[in-house]
Amino acid sequence: MARNTKVAAIQDAPPVTRTLAKLVATHPSRGWSDAVEKEAHRTFLNWAGCATGAAQHESVTAALGAVAMLQPAPQSSVLGRSERVDMASAALVNGISSHTFDFDDTHLKTIIHPAGPVASALLALAEVTGATGREVIDALVLGIDVSCRVGNMMYPDHYDRGWHITGSTGTLGAAAGCARLLGLDEQKTTMALGIAASQPIGMREQFGTMTKPFHPGGAARAGLTSALLARSGFTASPRAIEAARGMSQTISTKNDWNEITDELGSRFEISFNTYKPFACGIVIHPTIDAAVQLRDRGVKPADVERVELRVHSLVLELTGKKEPKDGLEGKFSVYHGFCCGLMFGRAAEHEYDDAIVNRADMVELRRKVVATVDDAIAEESADVTVVLKSGQREHVFVKHAIGSLERPMTDAMLEAKARDLAEPVIGLPRANSLIAACWGLGEASDVRAITRAACP
Amino acid sequence: MARNTKVAAIQDAPPVTRTLAKLVATHPSRGWSDAVEKEAHRTFLNWAGCATGAAQHESVTAALGAVAMLQPAPQSSVLGRSERVDMASAALVNGISSHTFDFDDTHLKTIIHPAGPVASALLALAEVTGATGREVIDALVLGIDVSCRVGNMMYPDHYDRGWHITGSTGTLGAAAGCARLLGLDEQKTTMALGIAASQPIGMREQFGTMTKPFHPGGAARAGLTSALLARSGFTASPRAIEAARGMSQTISTKNDWNEITDELGSRFEISFNTYKPFACGIVIHPTIDAAVQLRDRGVKPADVERVELRVHSLVLELTGKKEPKDGLEGKFSVYHGFCCGLMFGRAAEHEYDDAIVNRADMVELRRKVVATVDDAIAEESADVTVVLKSGQREHVFVKHAIGSLERPMTDAMLEAKARDLAEPVIGLPRANSLIAACWGLGEASDVRAITRAACP
Repeated sequence: MARNTKVAAIQDAPPVTRTLAKLVATHPSRGWSDAVEKEAHRTFLNWAGCATGAAQHESVTAALGAVAMLQPAPQSSVLGRSERVDMASAALVNGISSHTFDFDDTHLKTIIHPAGPVASALLALAEVTGATGREVIDALVLGIDVSCRVGNMMYPDHYDRGWHITGSTGTLGAAAGCARLLGLDEQKTTMALGIAASQPIGMREQFGTMTKPFHPGGAARAGLTSALLARSGFTASPRAIEAARGMSQTISTKNDWNEITDELGSRFEISFNTYKPFACGIVIHPTIDAAVQLRDRGVKPADVERVELRVHSLVLELTGKKEPKDGLEGKFSVYHGFCCGLMFGRAAEHEYDDAIVNRADMVELRRKVVATVDDAIAEESADVTVVLKSGQREHVFVKHAIGSLERPMTDAMLEAKARDLAEPVIGLPRANSLIAACWGLGEASDVRAITRAACP
Repeated sequence: MARNTKVAAIQDAPPVTRTLAKLVATHPSRGWSDAVEKEAHRTFLNWAGCATGAAQHESVTAALGAVAMLQPAPQSSVLGRSERVDMASAALVNGISSHTFDFDDTHLKTIIHPAGPVASALLALAEVTGATGREVIDALVLGIDVSCRVGNMMYPDHYDRGWHITGSTGTLGAAAGCARLLGLDEQKTTMALGIAASQPIGMREQFGTMTKPFHPGGAARAGLTSALLARSGFTASPRAIEAARGMSQTISTKNDWNEITDELGSRFEISFNTYKPFACGIVIHPTIDAAVQLRDRGVKPADVERVELRVHSLVLELTGKKEPKDGLEGKFSVYHGFCCGLMFGRAAEHEYDDAIVNRADMVELRRKVVATVDDAIAEESADVTVVLKSGQREHVFVKHAIGSLERPMTDAMLEAKARDLAEPVIGLPRANSLIAACWGLGEASDVRAITRAACP
């Protein structure tokens, strides 16, 4: 969930994005003086001369060597689609799709979603290089370690000031992972991280738009390209992350360098990765978890007289929508969340369809839920009592919801989640093949079992 | 030249870039516990499920529509090279090459180099769409207006805190130019700017490495992609630049919104573009200019007894190298700069070859130059007296150097500069064709005359 900000903001900003867009879109052609028109030609001539003049420079040759690896398109897969695109675009699109449902993984200490940038870049690159699954897993662990350690270093200031930390650190994670997959040495890996350090991606203002999932996608593409450039001899500052005018001091006032070095190589941040069992904000999860437990005990919606829900005030502040009108509003309703858990035993993307939110029995059940604020109950807990028509009472207290670090999802739950997501797109047999290919990745000779299974 | 910073910096930062690189490059494969290994597979499975599950979402379809325009490669030209690459890579590489010699244009108020991001994206896109020269010039003027106005809004705080403003604002300029070239309406142009606003590129720590010219290249690619995404229906916040957690408030504490709106559509920032006549830092330019004027008066190096050079203290602070050993050191030597002007009447990239810096007559002439600090002389001026062996004295005072806004380079000078740059790469006939094609761009039916001329 969003933290309260500590960084001062100017609230009365005029709509300059739209103002500039209007100029660009509607200003008449050649709507300026002859002097401006002439300056445009002078600008273009000077630019063309500079670009042509440097064409044989080693930096241009290195850059061309890097982008040459992006060809010929199509070369890499988009999960769940039959289209194949160039490697950089595959990294971009898989990064977008994996974050589109806000259902991916979370490194709770930093609220980074680590897999999107790193795995998306790795799969695209591995298809081209023919890397083994072992190499992919190694690169995944190390890439995620880089992005999450940099996140630990800068969080929370960096996030508070407006950065979407998944994209801003993800570029480094993707670059690190791709450098590893390409077998770059320490010096070239330093250059890959250095090039990536100039490209933090993502502003929190974009939350609620497609550009939010663009952030991990853009980070995957930028990190992949950074590693390709480094491989071709492109250079960057070896202190690009930490220097006074480097990345971290430019985009964060908190820089705990120890977060980079503490237990480096023995503690891996991927150990602290978590997975959402439910397709909604994490504050609702304890309540849904309680509802699922009640359902497992045999409580049936038709028998319910009343539900007494006691939660921390933040839960109702963020998700207190009593009468959600559609799926999106449902995601901000702890009431709908409870009903999903009791009615279906789950709350995946499907349970946030408009039709489900408006189903008569769901609306009826929802109106029986009475939520009360009790700040003695922690944010990550929920206390639920169901009063049945028989007068019987069933009580559940959830201290830590399923999916938390304390109660991680089991492998079976993770499988079921992936199957739920993939089946509507690629069908059940392929979904099962995809799951098997993921579990077996560390032993696989290449990534083709994954890309084949994920092709509809 | 670099401003002194006002943003506090942590000076004792440990070498975390290299520390992370060492981990990534040298940590043994599967050098972790079974729990970490398992978590990597869980992370990958969860990611693959999320990506596959969202594969038919409209954001993924929009992204695929955008990257489809990047194919089939090769589709666009790299100036001065025979290779053709995909459109996004052409934008990247031309942006790199145009800034490689640090010889491109400068919007002095912000020290933005505006053409690199914008022109590089436009030429690559225009080759694919078949846009007319008129459309390219329109897009160039408007794209540069966007990046420089955003620069005006944030400068100097944004630059002082560590951003290379050419790359950080260039993404918006390139997106604006490409949106115009694609004929996007106001709403889609707003989205293009919005997507671009999440991707400011460039840290000043990279100065002196290839990643400095990467910044305009990366901005060109990011801006081009942002426009393609917007065209395909991808969405962003319509307040992505100005909102509290948008771009400008996240990366700058100075946000003069008026800089966006003042005289919008009547004053164009391209009017304030300048071009370097000499391939070195701008503080040396008045001295070289004076030397060229002395040469034009007939002063010959062999007749010189002594040169008395009076300049502002900053000039010697930044460029006081008395005995430069190679071309790079020559760029930081006002002494070498003076000698280039008197010996050759110019100081282009060629005059910074190692061989020229070490030529006996250049070394001899250089030793006759005595520089004195006089802070009564402005930074942008130089006072030069040559004492000839005959005892005769020749004096020149340059208030504003050639290439400044007050004394802009003539078209003939710009032509000569472009010819100097292009001839060694593509030969004289093609260099002349390129110059003619640039001057005629506004009337051209497409950009092919330019890309043909620039192909060696």
